[in-house]
Amino acid sequence: MHVLVNAATSADGKLSSRRREQIAISGPADFDRVDSLRADSDAVMVGIGTVLADDPHLTVNESTSVAREERGDPSHPARVVADSRARTPSDARIVDDAATTYLLVSEAAPTDRIKALRETGAEVIVAGEERVALPEALSELESREIERLMVEGGGELIFSLFEAGLVDKLSVFVGPLVIGGREAPTLADGEGFVDGFPDLSLESVERIDAGVLLRWRVRP
Amino acid sequence: MHVLVNAATSADGKLSSRRREQIAISGPADFDRVDSLRADSDAVMVGIGTVLADDPHLTVNESTSVAREERGDPSHPARVVADSRARTPSDARIVDDAATTYLLVSEAAPTDRIKALRETGAEVIVAGEERVALPEALSELESREIERLMVEGGGELIFSLFEAGLVDKLSVFVGPLVIGGREAPTLADGEGFVDGFPDLSLESVERIDAGVLLRWRVRP
Ligand SMILES: NC(=O)c1ccc[n+]([C@@H]2O[C@H](COP(=O)([O-])OP(=O)(O)OC[C@H]3O[C@@H](n4cnc5c(N)ncnc54)[C@H](OP(=O)(O)O)[C@@H]3O)[C@@H](O)[C@H]2O)c1
Ligand SMILES: NC(=O)c1ccc[n+]([C@@H]2O[C@H](COP(=O)([O-])OP(=O)(O)OC[C@H]3O[C@@H](n4cnc5c(N)ncnc54)[C@H](OP(=O)(O)O)[C@@H]3O)[C@@H](O)[C@H]2O)c1
Repeated sequence: MHVLVNAATSADGKLSSRRREQIAISGPADFDRVDSLRADSDAVMVGIGTVLADDPHLTVNESTSVAREERGDPSHPARVVADSRARTPSDARIVDDAATTYLLVSEAAPTDRIKALRETGAEVIVAGEERVALPEALSELESREIERLMVEGGGELIFSLFEAGLVDKLSVFVGPLVIGGREAPTLADGEGFVDGFPDLSLESVERIDAGVLLRWRVRP
Repeated sequence: MHVLVNAATSADGKLSSRRREQIAISGPADFDRVDSLRADSDAVMVGIGTVLADDPHLTVNESTSVAREERGDPSHPARVVADSRARTPSDARIVDDAATTYLLVSEAAPTDRIKALRETGAEVIVAGEERVALPEALSELESREIERLMVEGGGELIFSLFEAGLVDKLSVFVGPLVIGGREAPTLADGEGFVDGFPDLSLESVERIDAGVLLRWRVRP
């Protein structure tokens, strides 16, 4: 499986403010770029923190979905949520019927929540005891023919993917603002590394909208 | 006064790991660039967090100091620490006799600590009740002919300078690694903004060492 992490940060590395509200960081050219990345992915993944904060839909634009259909793909890529305790609300946009949704949960997820989420039509995949075991969960997705996975955040999920050595590419749009805040979510949160930092190689630098897009490859 | 903030971050916006140890983020070309920035500044400033974590000297290279002397400037720019409670150790490198040092303290600083620091030859400037009042402290520096101030961090001081509207330029070297960590220091920490985010304009983008240098201007 090929895993691309894509996100937008402020000049100081934040995904959002301490209030965890969605903030306009990029602009129209970057939205189009994200749409193409989604279009070229088999699935788009987020963490439950992002679902609860932003209620994202994670679908592609109308014209993009037509192009996907023309080439024989589903209208939209599948959607994936890392959600150990099955906290995704049953009326979240990510579990509507626009596309297939995989909910990655752990053995700690309450059975009534799993049942409620299955009723939305989502497929529930159990991996890990207390928290989603990402290597195992991604193998399960791979066995469902998900080869190209795009991850859109947030910082907790992104850190865990780096920690598990699962990330191939990282693209970051850095926008023209300062958000600040010790408690604000950053591109990679979690426990953090203290040594053995994942090593990146800068593949391209491109000015876009009022910011800059940095594309990194993760060295094996 | 013209205030330039310069720092090096990981691809995820961190100044260091959660252990607050100094981490190699940039490389030789960036070190030279930082040396020239210092050479062109009247003073270089850090917060007490950085003094306690890194014990920086903040001087310029030998050849650079010769060039400064030749043009009639002091061998090194002055050094400034924002240190409300005068916690700078008396044997910190920043209070040695290589250059003038200004310690910005608040009225809450213990008199014995102020006395001990004055004995190192440092000049103590009192501004603010509990914490250093930065606008007032920077005016005091200006009255001592500090016109070009370079700020090297850390994230707490940088946030406060943005909050007080005191920053003119921000240059960030983004290096090829992921540090991660909710608790790791970022380029701008503090309380953080929730609206009225400082607005930047991207002046230049330059690949340097294995990373990229982003130069931003702060819009008034
Ligand atoms: N600017 C952007 O590009 C962008 C993109 C996305 C999100 N965001 C922002 O990011 C913020 C949300 O980020 P976040 O970091 O709080 O949340 P997140 O990464 O979306 O979700 C984190 C949650 O995922 C669950 N999870 C399950 N398995 C995990 C594993 N193995 N490792 C890590 N997490 C796992 C955990 O909750 P459980 O243990 O309960 O499952 C964890 O708390 C919001 O403010 C949102 O607006 C911004
Ligand atoms: N990568 C880089 O370029 C770079 C550069 C510098 C530092 N660093 C790293 O950054 C970390 C230190 O950063 P930090 O954020 O903890 O410390 P910091 O910003 O250097 O210092 C913060 C301290 O300054 C004092 N201060 C006084 N007046 C202030 C004001 N008005 N606003 C804010 N602070 C004020 C406060 O302590 P009092 O209230 O006690 O005075 C505050 O805790 C270290 O890990 C260091 O290695 C990295």
